[in-house]
Amino acid sequence: MTAKKERTRALILETSYTLFAQHGFSKITMKDICDATNLSRGGLYSHFSSPQEIFETILEGLNQKDEMNFYQEMESGVAANVIMDRALLLMEREMASPQDSLSLAIYEYSGSVDANLMCHFNQSSEQKWAALIRYGIEGGEFYKVDIEELVRIILYSYQGVRMWSRIIPMTPDVFRSITSHIKKQLYRQKV
Amino acid sequence: MTAKKERTRALILETSYTLFAQHGFSKITMKDICDATNLSRGGLYSHFSSPQEIFETILEGLNQKDEMNFYQEMESGVAANVIMDRALLLMEREMASPQDSLSLAIYEYSGSVDANLMCHFNQSSEQKWAALIRYGIEGGEFYKVDIEELVRIILYSYQGVRMWSRIIPMTPDVFRSITSHIKKQLYRQKV
Repeated sequence: MTAKKERTRALILETSYTLFAQHGFSKITMKDICDATNLSRGGLYSHFSSPQEIFETILEGLNQKDEMNFYQEMESGVAANVIMDRALLLMEREMASPQDSLSLAIYEYSGSVDANLMCHFNQSSEQKWAALIRYGIEGGEFYKVDIEELVRIILYSYQGVRMWSRIIPMTPDVFRSITSHIKKQLYRQKV
Repeated sequence: MTAKKERTRALILETSYTLFAQHGFSKITMKDICDATNLSRGGLYSHFSSPQEIFETILEGLNQKDEMNFYQEMESGVAANVIMDRALLLMEREMASPQDSLSLAIYEYSGSVDANLMCHFNQSSEQKWAALIRYGIEGGEFYKVDIEELVRIILYSYQGVRMWSRIIPMTPDVFRSITSHIKKQLYRQKV
């Protein structure tokens, strides 16, 4: 892909992300994306054939970006608590940006198109967190927690906040409560 | 209200609950509710003037039903772990019924009508759980946990599951993970 094509593709993905986060998945049309990117119909369609394809590309991108962080660092022998601290900080920042939450769009997408993709992402997210916790336990850094249980607490309390922060205003201490709770379950040293 | 009027009112609320859970808030009209209840327009409007009024009455009902359980039992001196066990069992059952989840409807309602009511319900829910945990700590039944933090874990992991169980299929062990984690934080005796 040429540099210009790549820039256009990135523009489409970024702009569409904002549209999906603001309005959900169902309402967004290719015309909306043309208007928001200032691309012609032909220009847009030369990259993507539907809002669905764009949305799936965004989800795939989020999933891969996420996965890389953990596994690469574990392989490089970075301390589990360093990886965990950064992951939780990132989580806190995401929770603090309800306007960027794709919760509603994911909900609408799964209902109207395909739940399999979300199952796949959910599973890969579960595996990633479980691998990190296991890594910390085996290295003697983390308490021997029930891994599956804690992973679910991490994922669903995060998702609950992502959803509800779009419904009611939330202060940063809510996000810190979630991450602080997770740290307390894991860390031998004082949080 | 006469007995017949009360039955009609209950029928409207139950039927509308199902409609809101299935289709969200925005799409449901008074005509949908007439059709689903087999009531005439006049019959329906003599009870409620809008889907919004019906939805708010449903939310108010859920909120009050919930609140009663906890406070009454604490006043009667029921053991904290008995109240907590039952509350968590109820929570598990609710999580196991994604078809009854009002998550999407609440989301749409808050976006289009009013976030204040949800703030109020969220606050009263926080207060209720906090009161129960405090009661258990003061009675020596529960560990001295960070109450605010644990309440948020309870509420948002519950909400995350309620939302995501509509997106992906979930097995009962997910719901038990959530409640088991909460019990482990609180109980001196083995769970």
